[in-house]
Amino acid sequence: MKQLKVAILGATGLVGQHYIKLLARHPWFKIATLTGKESIGKKYVEAVRGEAPDPPKEIAEMEVVPTEPKYVDADFVFSCLPTEAAREVEPSFAKSGFPVVSDASAHRMDEDVPLIIPEVNPGHLKLVELQRKRRGWDGFIVTTPNCTTVGLALTLYPLHKTYNIKKAVVTTMQAVSGAGYPGVPSLSIMGNVIPYISGEEKKVEIETLKILGNLENSIVKPASLEIETTCTRVPTIDGHLESLHIETERPINVDEAKSVLAEFASVPQELNLPTAPRRPIIVREEQDRPQPRIDADAGTVPGMSVTVGRVRQGKRPTTLNLLLLSHNLIRGAAGVAILTAELAHHYGMLR
Amino acid sequence: MKQLKVAILGATGLVGQHYIKLLARHPWFKIATLTGKESIGKKYVEAVRGEAPDPPKEIAEMEVVPTEPKYVDADFVFSCLPTEAAREVEPSFAKSGFPVVSDASAHRMDEDVPLIIPEVNPGHLKLVELQRKRRGWDGFIVTTPNCTTVGLALTLYPLHKTYNIKKAVVTTMQAVSGAGYPGVPSLSIMGNVIPYISGEEKKVEIETLKILGNLENSIVKPASLEIETTCTRVPTIDGHLESLHIETERPINVDEAKSVLAEFASVPQELNLPTAPRRPIIVREEQDRPQPRIDADAGTVPGMSVTVGRVRQGKRPTTLNLLLLSHNLIRGAAGVAILTAELAHHYGMLR
Amino acid sequence: MKQLKVAILGATGLVGQHYIKLLARHPWFKIATLTGKESIGKKYVEAVRGEAPDPPKEIAEMEVVPTEPKYVDADFVFSCLPTEAAREVEPSFAKSGFPVVSDASAHRMDEDVPLIIPEVNPGHLKLVELQRKRRGWDGFIVTTPNCTTVGLALTLYPLHKTYNIKKAVVTTMQAVSGAGYPGVPSLSIMGNVIPYISGEEKKVEIETLKILGNLENSIVKPASLEIETTCTRVPTIDGHLESLHIETERPINVDEAKSVLAEFASVPQELNLPTAPRRPIIVREEQDRPQPRIDADAGTVPGMSVTVGRVRQGKRPTTLNLLLLSHNLIRGAAGVAILTAELAHHYGMLR
Amino acid sequence: MKQLKVAILGATGLVGQHYIKLLARHPWFKIATLTGKESIGKKYVEAVRGEAPDPPKEIAEMEVVPTEPKYVDADFVFSCLPTEAAREVEPSFAKSGFPVVSDASAHRMDEDVPLIIPEVNPGHLKLVELQRKRRGWDGFIVTTPNCTTVGLALTLYPLHKTYNIKKAVVTTMQAVSGAGYPGVPSLSIMGNVIPYISGEEKKVEIETLKILGNLENSIVKPASLEIETTCTRVPTIDGHLESLHIETERPINVDEAKSVLAEFASVPQELNLPTAPRRPIIVREEQDRPQPRIDADAGTVPGMSVTVGRVRQGKRPTTLNLLLLSHNLIRGAAGVAILTAELAHHYGMLR
Repeated sequence: MKQLKVAILGATGLVGQHYIKLLARHPWFKIATLTGKESIGKKYVEAVRGEAPDPPKEIAEMEVVPTEPKYVDADFVFSCLPTEAAREVEPSFAKSGFPVVSDASAHRMDEDVPLIIPEVNPGHLKLVELQRKRRGWDGFIVTTPNCTTVGLALTLYPLHKTYNIKKAVVTTMQAVSGAGYPGVPSLSIMGNVIPYISGEEKKVEIETLKILGNLENSIVKPASLEIETTCTRVPTIDGHLESLHIETERPINVDEAKSVLAEFASVPQELNLPTAPRRPIIVREEQDRPQPRIDADAGTVPGMSVTVGRVRQGKRPTTLNLLLLSHNLIRGAAGVAILTAELAHHYGMLR
Repeated sequence: MKQLKVAILGATGLVGQHYIKLLARHPWFKIATLTGKESIGKKYVEAVRGEAPDPPKEIAEMEVVPTEPKYVDADFVFSCLPTEAAREVEPSFAKSGFPVVSDASAHRMDEDVPLIIPEVNPGHLKLVELQRKRRGWDGFIVTTPNCTTVGLALTLYPLHKTYNIKKAVVTTMQAVSGAGYPGVPSLSIMGNVIPYISGEEKKVEIETLKILGNLENSIVKPASLEIETTCTRVPTIDGHLESLHIETERPINVDEAKSVLAEFASVPQELNLPTAPRRPIIVREEQDRPQPRIDADAGTVPGMSVTVGRVRQGKRPTTLNLLLLSHNLIRGAAGVAILTAELAHHYGMLR
Repeated sequence: MKQLKVAILGATGLVGQHYIKLLARHPWFKIATLTGKESIGKKYVEAVRGEAPDPPKEIAEMEVVPTEPKYVDADFVFSCLPTEAAREVEPSFAKSGFPVVSDASAHRMDEDVPLIIPEVNPGHLKLVELQRKRRGWDGFIVTTPNCTTVGLALTLYPLHKTYNIKKAVVTTMQAVSGAGYPGVPSLSIMGNVIPYISGEEKKVEIETLKILGNLENSIVKPASLEIETTCTRVPTIDGHLESLHIETERPINVDEAKSVLAEFASVPQELNLPTAPRRPIIVREEQDRPQPRIDADAGTVPGMSVTVGRVRQGKRPTTLNLLLLSHNLIRGAAGVAILTAELAHHYGMLR
Repeated sequence: MKQLKVAILGATGLVGQHYIKLLARHPWFKIATLTGKESIGKKYVEAVRGEAPDPPKEIAEMEVVPTEPKYVDADFVFSCLPTEAAREVEPSFAKSGFPVVSDASAHRMDEDVPLIIPEVNPGHLKLVELQRKRRGWDGFIVTTPNCTTVGLALTLYPLHKTYNIKKAVVTTMQAVSGAGYPGVPSLSIMGNVIPYISGEEKKVEIETLKILGNLENSIVKPASLEIETTCTRVPTIDGHLESLHIETERPINVDEAKSVLAEFASVPQELNLPTAPRRPIIVREEQDRPQPRIDADAGTVPGMSVTVGRVRQGKRPTTLNLLLLSHNLIRGAAGVAILTAELAHHYGMLR
């Protein structure tokens, strides 16, 4: 099969580096262009040097080009641009005919932009039709969620289908890599917890409702559960841990709930997409798991499975407590976007 | 005023060291005896050497004696023994006529043993009458709560009085010093979160209900709110942080709720007890507080005030979110016990 | 005694905060002006908010003014400006008649500028005469060393006097607070060591030789020992640890060397200056000290004593190994500058 | 080729886990027996559960047996026993006819026991002849060095051959995994450095001299350079970093020294042994490398290459400074032992 050429917009940051790692031996996609800002004209390896393990040689030597359509030679683009840049740049690429798969937050909540977790709401990709019609674009924008939303929504989804969740209370313990580089100063976080991440709680709440919502008359009607979120930063490197309490309409049997989670599989698994883990959700039985340092890379595609543990009945038949962990840079960013692109490609949207 | 002589049972551990620090210049109490186990016969400074800052000279030179009544010369004793040891030893001291103020968990839930936070349930000290009658002891046992319970119950109390809490969902992020020394292996916790602390969640739930309960017919009737707890260990040194969501009967006005917390004062403040902070609860307005490393020592008596922050309305008029932090070794252990002893002394119970 | 009014140039940074803490109850000096850059016009508490414990109330409310002589009402100034700013600004203050005591690096190696550790080379203050003559200034500049130099030079000095050091090999393990705020990204240093600090090794070497040098014909002749330095950053908050190996001319007796260090006292101790610790060097006998988290605040004036440990004979009679620790923000910055100002004031230089 | 059956003595510890990982797909060796102590009779996965990533399924289900020859079915054994256990047990296995390849310290300095780094002193394996003759054993003991020694001796060796090293001054910054599990308490090391590791400095010094020594008349004559060592523990997970200063007889050209290190290859590379990295020493040109978190796993066989950086001329033509990093559990323990076994097997010693 001929590989599609891809560009990575904003390739020099932390998420960009993970795209490169995950695409290194990708069967369908081949990196053709890397864009940047301060590092334009530099070799890629010099643009990121010192922050990360060495990139593959052929990528290391690529020249970083400006983030403009005319410099990009690709069948479609991944965008991991900062929010402000993404707001202007992604539409300009879509207008120029590029399919854009973006993990930036700028357009996630646009009514005609799909916000996708391939296992949860693959059907929302249909929003692209509305988007193209409204905007008159040859290309389009598809987005993937905030790094904290992904693990939460992926875990809520099978439970919601089974038990109808009325309310969720979640406290997150997020890794420093979620803030990019340089990100969180060491003086602020070493031996400490910062109980606040700007804008994060609102994103988690509204994005989750959109993802769990139904497509009705070409528009996503958000799900109606109540979500209470507290986001904190803890001194871990990778892997966002979330403590979740849910109240449901239907009574929960804990063993059944574990099966619902552990056996969950969806379209990407059925299609055997290259970046789809065999199990989107891994349920651990040990008392003290998931743990970020041990479990962030779990799964048949490392970092693409959410690990759930300590699934416990609450004080009522209709309440449940658990912890979940997902790799914020893989399942929560580069990985979910690649999986989304694979899905879009399967649907013939990238050709 | 003549100072009372006190013994510290289990003085060589981490909590013991904090008793010594807090009692160094205490106006009412004077350390007379230090007990230990492996270190019997050693100088105190050699028994704890390497783990902590240097103790005061006169304490450093004291000899560690066995934890038995006959070796103890004191008007009353503080116990920070391990649970198993406390189960046998504390009654033997009470039987021998000693008042025992204990932060060990062994007897906290005994029906006739008070479990005290002086600002919350000073009246529960009356249980001692029942205890003495039932057990025929000259002395008695008074306990203080688990280090995680203290901050939670102290924060819930004024809110409960005002709004009648129906349900509380709490996720804790607890410091490694809460596990004592050697405690948590560095390989387990560095750059990691361990989402489980053995026995902790149950303690937090049942202790809080006892503390918030009412004394009826000489017995404490537990409060009836529902508490859902998830306890985690994070790589911080001191200070347990707790993310709290509550549902109340009466609607909450956030500004009023902040005032209810910030202006809360109780018997220890009225009596101006030596270890009573001017404000048991400090409310911060910054978006990103409380933080363990910055706020654990807050207050006029360092470590005795709980710091509350991010007080936010939930999705309904009857829900509220906030974070609270308390110093697990001071307000959560040695400090709350000393304050309890001060209260008991004021009531004439230690003479 | 009437207090001198002082200004702190660059008061909002990490070192500035320590000046404020150390000067809070100073008997001789009173903070009159705080200068800044981005935060001009703000209250001080808002300029530093979130980074540090709360400043004293009267300081918190002070307005931050521009770093120019015309805005400053003071008898002398402390400068903790960034290097580039210090290069221009400090001379402009000296020209305007202000004595400047600076811990910035800009002018440390100027031939006519004293580089002072009050216990080591108080006599170098005489360079000010040459400086004023050459530059025609009413005021003057006196500097204090790099945070890593101070602990090293203070430890080397009594050993050098006694044994004549020919060569020193030093490897440092420096705390993140030495890089200021935001300083070192958490992603770079958590669970890691960065074996490089830009410009640091050269500073340590040339500054130490100047400090240990002799004033001959109004000029400092650098000491002639050979110093080999490797500077690393480790994930500690405060306190620079240094592993030191020395080769000397005269044979060393280890017990004598310990006494030489432990009993060292100098002009500041004789004059009983307010910020002078009783012992500039504390020698620990335990096998595993000094440790940054335990020992950084050691001494009668917390943070002003260097802690030395593991003093061991090398493989030859003329070699010695030891570790030393000094608080980089206190003895290594704000504290050494305040002590230097006290010395200068004693000599009548600030009136 | 038929695979040799191997037993791992003390398989449940941290080093044992790394043997299992490294041998998972080994072409020559196949794990046949795992021994333990407290966990005898348990499945392997239960014996190590919670400390490490999941072991391969076939290993996970193996039963842990007692560390006695009669329970062991193997062509040879690896020993990662604690020192005290190794002292008695390893000779008993050798006596029973087993070749023992040990990374325990018990017998390293025995005159007739080889202490091997395959790239440095493969010829020392001949000591086994003396050993068998003297002790009358069918089997034998071959040892590998302390985890800190390996990286140092491997780096010194090519420099020593080229420049004749007279003196080395080394300060180590060692990871917590070097202390095993539970090892270093988190309260001791978080945000801290412990400048002492019991017994380590002496081991590094005497082992290095033995390894660099020459075999003369069937006995190893230690090398004669002077080594001054200071060992510290820092809060890193894996990878021992060492700051090295050397004095040589012959003058050093820095570029040449880098080539000497980077191009060093030896018997294992020539023989293309399965666990031999293409480059035993990787020289980095960046200013701020090697870093434990980034570089510990460097090389074509992850964790088997030592990374050297910041190679700088000292103050004299005959002095040189550099930093080196080696993975303490792989090149410093399990990996060097496996490579040694491969070498021994090549020489026909394991059949």
